[in-house]
Amino acid sequence: MDLKQYLARRQKQIERALDRFLPRASAKPATIHKAMRYSLFAGGKRLRPILCLAAAEACGGEIEAALPSACAMECIHTYSLIHDDLPSMDNDDFRRGRPTCHKVFGDGIAVLAGDALLTTAFEIAASTQPTRRYDLKQIIGEIAVAAGSRKLIAGQVADLEAEGQPITRSGLRYIHENKTAAMLIASVRLGAMSANATAKQLEALSAFGAALGLAFQVIDDILDVTQTSEKLGKSAGKDLTAQKATYPAAIGLEKSRREAQRLTREAHDALSAFGGKAERLHALANHLLDRDY
Amino acid sequence: MDLKQYLARRQKQIERALDRFLPRASAKPATIHKAMRYSLFAGGKRLRPILCLAAAEACGGEIEAALPSACAMECIHTYSLIHDDLPSMDNDDFRRGRPTCHKVFGDGIAVLAGDALLTTAFEIAASTQPTRRYDLKQIIGEIAVAAGSRKLIAGQVADLEAEGQPITRSGLRYIHENKTAAMLIASVRLGAMSANATAKQLEALSAFGAALGLAFQVIDDILDVTQTSEKLGKSAGKDLTAQKATYPAAIGLEKSRREAQRLTREAHDALSAFGGKAERLHALANHLLDRDY
Repeated sequence: MDLKQYLARRQKQIERALDRFLPRASAKPATIHKAMRYSLFAGGKRLRPILCLAAAEACGGEIEAALPSACAMECIHTYSLIHDDLPSMDNDDFRRGRPTCHKVFGDGIAVLAGDALLTTAFEIAASTQPTRRYDLKQIIGEIAVAAGSRKLIAGQVADLEAEGQPITRSGLRYIHENKTAAMLIASVRLGAMSANATAKQLEALSAFGAALGLAFQVIDDILDVTQTSEKLGKSAGKDLTAQKATYPAAIGLEKSRREAQRLTREAHDALSAFGGKAERLHALANHLLDRDY
Repeated sequence: MDLKQYLARRQKQIERALDRFLPRASAKPATIHKAMRYSLFAGGKRLRPILCLAAAEACGGEIEAALPSACAMECIHTYSLIHDDLPSMDNDDFRRGRPTCHKVFGDGIAVLAGDALLTTAFEIAASTQPTRRYDLKQIIGEIAVAAGSRKLIAGQVADLEAEGQPITRSGLRYIHENKTAAMLIASVRLGAMSANATAKQLEALSAFGAALGLAFQVIDDILDVTQTSEKLGKSAGKDLTAQKATYPAAIGLEKSRREAQRLTREAHDALSAFGGKAERLHALANHLLDRDY
């Protein structure tokens, strides 16, 4: 399979769906809809929704059925970036090579744009067709738990509180498991649910998502240390300057690289029962590790 | 009926349910759960959830069935207050006589505590039992639309953008309809849905909520001008200082008072078809107007 072509096709599908689900930029009040769209259509990789769709395919499901969940997860991911970038949080001026939402629209509108994307996510998710095994209660619950105070937000809190503190490896794992892995796990699980997956398939995909999520975050940490600002499209070395908890800081660069490779093997192994149907998930996992770290 | 006793009983029921729905204050990471509970259990009047329960009763439903929706609306109301109080928004130091969330926990945690309460609201709402006429899709959709970028958040944006601008009466109405009335309308509608209300009942309650919401906001505007800080438990005259859009500023104090009375009559009239079953809704509407304005 041609991964580049596959990614481009899926990105287009997801962006068309997001555009359909979101209010027009001109909808009153225009400021908030412009701000939501500014961040949502800022050239994101669409990793979470693509994983969601690929998991649905691995379970024999239809792309169309997985699209609402996929788009909901992307809205939540974008909202978390907008709030993460705020001066009271990470205080980032750039994201994906462009000024962050609050730099363009002001801090107040950026808070509200994040709030609105989070709310929209649940409106979109509510349009998911339940399957025989999974009803809307489970689908909404899956999203709310992954994005809630014991997962995504727990990771952000731990991240905030770890700044300037000595870093333990378990503390770091906690941050990554909650801030990153939980959202990837939920993405593949939601795709599987839309395909009426068996409990066994759901479990295997959870393990895949967990390993992939940690691998992804370790690589992000490594790239922050090794790459230039220009290449990243955000301020590089920033994590180091802010004394943020990162894998390279906790266990060194070489060990971090080996950890990323080990986690990727773990991710691939979790897919064994799917055989050829998981081809795209395997390719996506490889793609994440093939970043230049 | 003894309204004071009724309110106290309902407040207790709602607070017990909220306590059950929310993670413990000690749940990891404790900071976020302490912050969420600090604002959620800060002596709020529980107006929205009480209206939700009273609407369920007016439609012949059970309190128990309406509690998830009622609590979801209170979580959303509290999140909107936390974010509204932030320095980048209204910049309020006090709320209900206590320091605001960001004053106690810092701006970053306050942003996240609001996010977490919004997310929790949908987790709670997902535990609502659908009825014959209303499925979970409609219930989640009702909440998401009321709290979204074209209602609650639209009102907040318009409010932010109106500061320091000349105030028109229609601009003001837009703010109140979206920032306040939409949440009250959704509260009574959700109560009605939990009671499997007819379309006619739902429509009547929407009209009731709309009139009540506007009345409530006009009175809030009046009180801000006429009351002292001590009595309000927040910085009085603040709206005036910040040149905020208020009814007294737009049409004067006397006209504002008459408008509040007119809207209350409108609210009562909307309940005519319910007869004695709406006794509590009538009492609640009176209660809102009987504030010392």
